[in-house]
Amino acid sequence: MIDKKDQQLASGGLGRRSFINTAALVGLTAGVAACTEKPGTAAAPAAPAAPASSHAGAGANVHLKPGELDTYYGLWSGGHTGDMRVLGLPSGREITRIPCFVPDALVGWGITNESKAVMGTKPDGSLKYTVADTHHTHASYKDGNYDGRYAWINDKINSRIARIRLDYFVCDKITELPNVQGFHGIFPDKADPVDPAVNYTTRVFCGGEFAIPLPNTGTEDISKYRSMFTCVDAETMEVRWQVLIDGNCDLVATSYDGKLAATNQYNVEMGAKYEDMMSAERDACLFFNVARIEAAVKAGKFKTIGTSKVPVVDGTHEANKDPKTALTAYVSVPKNPHGVNASPDGKYFICAGKLSPTGTVIELSKVLDWFEGKLEKLDAAIVAEVELGLGPLHTAFDGRGNAYTTLFLDSQVVKWNVEAAIKFHAGDKTAKYVVDRLDVQYQPGHLNASHSETKAADGKYLAVGCKFSKDRFLPVGPLHPENEQLIDISGEKMVLLADHPVRGEPHDFIIFKRDLVRPKQVYNLDDSPLAIKDPKESGVFRSGKKVTVKMTSQAPAFSLREFKLKKGDEVTLILTNLDKIEDLTHGFAIPNYNVNFIVNPLETKSVTFIADKPGVFWCYCTHFCHALHLEMRTRMIVEA
Amino acid sequence: MIDKKDQQLASGGLGRRSFINTAALVGLTAGVAACTEKPGTAAAPAAPAAPASSHAGAGANVHLKPGELDTYYGLWSGGHTGDMRVLGLPSGREITRIPCFVPDALVGWGITNESKAVMGTKPDGSLKYTVADTHHTHASYKDGNYDGRYAWINDKINSRIARIRLDYFVCDKITELPNVQGFHGIFPDKADPVDPAVNYTTRVFCGGEFAIPLPNTGTEDISKYRSMFTCVDAETMEVRWQVLIDGNCDLVATSYDGKLAATNQYNVEMGAKYEDMMSAERDACLFFNVARIEAAVKAGKFKTIGTSKVPVVDGTHEANKDPKTALTAYVSVPKNPHGVNASPDGKYFICAGKLSPTGTVIELSKVLDWFEGKLEKLDAAIVAEVELGLGPLHTAFDGRGNAYTTLFLDSQVVKWNVEAAIKFHAGDKTAKYVVDRLDVQYQPGHLNASHSETKAADGKYLAVGCKFSKDRFLPVGPLHPENEQLIDISGEKMVLLADHPVRGEPHDFIIFKRDLVRPKQVYNLDDSPLAIKDPKESGVFRSGKKVTVKMTSQAPAFSLREFKLKKGDEVTLILTNLDKIEDLTHGFAIPNYNVNFIVNPLETKSVTFIADKPGVFWCYCTHFCHALHLEMRTRMIVEA
Repeated sequence: MIDKKDQQLASGGLGRRSFINTAALVGLTAGVAACTEKPGTAAAPAAPAAPASSHAGAGANVHLKPGELDTYYGLWSGGHTGDMRVLGLPSGREITRIPCFVPDALVGWGITNESKAVMGTKPDGSLKYTVADTHHTHASYKDGNYDGRYAWINDKINSRIARIRLDYFVCDKITELPNVQGFHGIFPDKADPVDPAVNYTTRVFCGGEFAIPLPNTGTEDISKYRSMFTCVDAETMEVRWQVLIDGNCDLVATSYDGKLAATNQYNVEMGAKYEDMMSAERDACLFFNVARIEAAVKAGKFKTIGTSKVPVVDGTHEANKDPKTALTAYVSVPKNPHGVNASPDGKYFICAGKLSPTGTVIELSKVLDWFEGKLEKLDAAIVAEVELGLGPLHTAFDGRGNAYTTLFLDSQVVKWNVEAAIKFHAGDKTAKYVVDRLDVQYQPGHLNASHSETKAADGKYLAVGCKFSKDRFLPVGPLHPENEQLIDISGEKMVLLADHPVRGEPHDFIIFKRDLVRPKQVYNLDDSPLAIKDPKESGVFRSGKKVTVKMTSQAPAFSLREFKLKKGDEVTLILTNLDKIEDLTHGFAIPNYNVNFIVNPLETKSVTFIADKPGVFWCYCTHFCHALHLEMRTRMIVEA
Repeated sequence: MIDKKDQQLASGGLGRRSFINTAALVGLTAGVAACTEKPGTAAAPAAPAAPASSHAGAGANVHLKPGELDTYYGLWSGGHTGDMRVLGLPSGREITRIPCFVPDALVGWGITNESKAVMGTKPDGSLKYTVADTHHTHASYKDGNYDGRYAWINDKINSRIARIRLDYFVCDKITELPNVQGFHGIFPDKADPVDPAVNYTTRVFCGGEFAIPLPNTGTEDISKYRSMFTCVDAETMEVRWQVLIDGNCDLVATSYDGKLAATNQYNVEMGAKYEDMMSAERDACLFFNVARIEAAVKAGKFKTIGTSKVPVVDGTHEANKDPKTALTAYVSVPKNPHGVNASPDGKYFICAGKLSPTGTVIELSKVLDWFEGKLEKLDAAIVAEVELGLGPLHTAFDGRGNAYTTLFLDSQVVKWNVEAAIKFHAGDKTAKYVVDRLDVQYQPGHLNASHSETKAADGKYLAVGCKFSKDRFLPVGPLHPENEQLIDISGEKMVLLADHPVRGEPHDFIIFKRDLVRPKQVYNLDDSPLAIKDPKESGVFRSGKKVTVKMTSQAPAFSLREFKLKKGDEVTLILTNLDKIEDLTHGFAIPNYNVNFIVNPLETKSVTFIADKPGVFWCYCTHFCHALHLEMRTRMIVEA
């Protein structure tokens, strides 16, 4: 039963702040730490929030004329849609979605043999998983900037990492991490910690969020549960090594020199319930000394867990008390931090407090000093811990020394100056580190700026992923879109440019200049060993019950106008699209046989099915190709 | 092997017209009829095409300021993505997608028991189909305008029709049509043909495109193949009756008085190959006399086919020679027509020629006259057949007497005046029926204008679904987006407003004013008989190996913090979201168990799975709900 007050809530009759208080803060009041009660934090003179956002100045060019191209790409996590979205910015237009972890009926991802091999199947040939929960996407680096080779994306539900080739904009490999549940943060390295010639990405780090029994026996005793930090090889996509840790992993950041990776920990308590997880006043940012870990693996100082052959080194507190041999270092940060981000000058990692209103700035050279025995107390690497506002989550950068942090509870983005914050923290209370505040609509999670997490941060556009859109778009029933807002950060004040609705629920994203990638528009026939290079090779080739059907497509016809099968045949149908012209994609559907997939120019795809239904089946082109598209068919006759 | 010329093609080095000629026209030259060679057509003075489109005038308001709402909804077919897209216009923003025929990992469509019941399953409980090919979507009518109750959408691959509830924006029923392959066109009726009190939609008509053996025995003899026209009950979604026809069905239109439905036929030849399908100079627009068909069914003048119990009446030429008893009437139209659309004044159906450069205007009162024996020659119902341009496909209306037809081969939209065309056809060669032409980018298929197919056609916006986008968006690999362009039609000249990329491949769509629907923002607990109305009802309820887990969600916790199962249990988990606040959706994922779904405010969902993997599984909220969202978990322990 709903009482009157609840009905009022349900009908959306409340204003913005009331909504925040009733929805997002429920049960939280006791958990939000008052900043003045904690060591290392200090109240600062806050800049007032901007008034209702204006739509002016640099923002004029957000709206493209017909035919105008965007100037930036955005790679966006698709959330539990399980794919990657590709946007053009500043328009916010979604140009494509790249299927990764879950089937995609448009391209036949999960239908073709090629995609099933990437996704992974059960012994019976069916897909192992059809759901996913992608959160974070990051791209490969060279010399501290993106190099346009690869992007990676995580699946939290099933602990999988997928790689996207940025030449074809397709997923080419998926790896399931052993002994990990709730794989959350992901970040490629930017250089090798030892070999300076390797100034590009060769590793991808993966943070395991949920602590489980290792191996997962199902024991109830939570004191036996642990999480893992994992390193995956960027080229082979094989798991190189894992680190057993105390507490958990949330997001991941990497240093520009390749020496350090880190993850923020919101649950050093290793609690099972949210009240336990928020009981400690401080959690941690956990650093990994990459060179030492790899030396330990090389020296055989590891174990393996369960059936996995992956080397696991010990990164727990107990095993890493001596800085000079430590593989890990636990820097303390306030209550349930929600993100860790590397500043583009290469000097700092910044953690946002979530349940503390603070941002914590950790100086990387001091963390390295600690590992070298030159810094007595690890927490002395904290060079600032300043108040930002309620519910700080993630931080982006403009390359001009400013950081931008989302405030989930305040529904704001706060712009603050990192060096001013360090001065303030050091005692200069006149240092005004908060530069600007902007209301966003509503409850922002991730944000990112153009080239923010590279040395080429250009401080032009900032996108903010607002988790609630409430009244910002036409109503479409109970499931609301989220609101990706675009902000101009080229000036002193932030300017809100546009609301972009998005189907839930993206998390993280990256934004880069359009000249960074030069995707191919047409496949190469030799990309597939199965390619049928001449229509004359078409035909039905039988070997007992196993039948191979070879076919090509050239608008407006398939090379076979009909083909015959016998009931019970195991059929592998191979289709090469011999049309070479950009954008001339064909589709191939078999009614009632649950087959549909596309073949792009010069691409080859195959499907395997049992011809279990006798009858006539008009296989047809599903992707509009030609004026005679509708007439483009082939007749499959399955004899009883 | 690719030769040099092909490489040049592949690299996109050709201009717009060259592209059209090389790609879309391949193999077609012989097939395009010269209009002057055919009876009933006439060359007209053509208006010149507009120069490079301008972006001005009424178009200024296409770009919304942050927080501004769109003024129109668009319901868009998702093509072989298998869902329905909901857009806001004029911004072109996609606000949501409504899962129908294929699984959707975001909402858990195809994962929850409720969605599987709508989609249909095999005996083993797995989904019957996971691919689809939606083409056309239309909404329910009252008094000749949309009434905001339902929309329908087709799946061509598996001959399914889905209904969308426009209160919740969800699919609630799917029906598979018997004895139909390639279900293409779909249109609801607008009134009852007999009872004037029924001035709203009660039937949905479905056109079967592919002729097959009936029942589908697999015979090779194509002379035995036939297509069907099907009537589905709008409320029960059961199939009411079918009509066996000669030729095939493509699109469908319905009259405002409820008396007539029609389908254009591009293959009266009933050929198997495209050369056969385009061999005749004229095809047909096939009319159905709805009242007579239903009287015949009532009188028992039908047969049934195969295992289907659906009454099938005979609509072939042979059985319908006498106008006074005919159920069907085959009006001839030129070569391979691609669409049939009803004008908003209720007077005409218009067919576009595709392989003929003509539009054919058929006057409905004259078709009714023929059925009454008052018109001697059926083709005398054709009141205009005029040249429009190359590759005319579909037609929209502005309510001011103008029609807008896409020209696939010319990559244009042509605006023409219907009454002027009728005058021209009647002999007045001074009647300038072509009002304007606009280049579009590129190869347009469907188009539709705001309220175009209703009596409320307001002539404001026209959307055009361009099948090729080529160079209009940032490159994203070989699979290009399509280009939905928005055109201002409020003035004499058409003005191109914006390019909107869309993941292939939508076909048809409708556009209506935003006040026409008032979607609910929150579910009613009583919507589900399984609803858990009080967290106290939560628990694990065992009956042998069958286990029911009842749980509620209220941010930031699930009502069960942990639950235990035994390996091998058949578990049904029921989750009710007791959060009542708009936009406060939760998700529920079980790692490695392939379970993820969302519960919107006050919604109830359930899943059934076998607990076949022992261990600890942290089930977590996948839909960002609260500052402690990340901490919102429940622990599932499966004992070995």
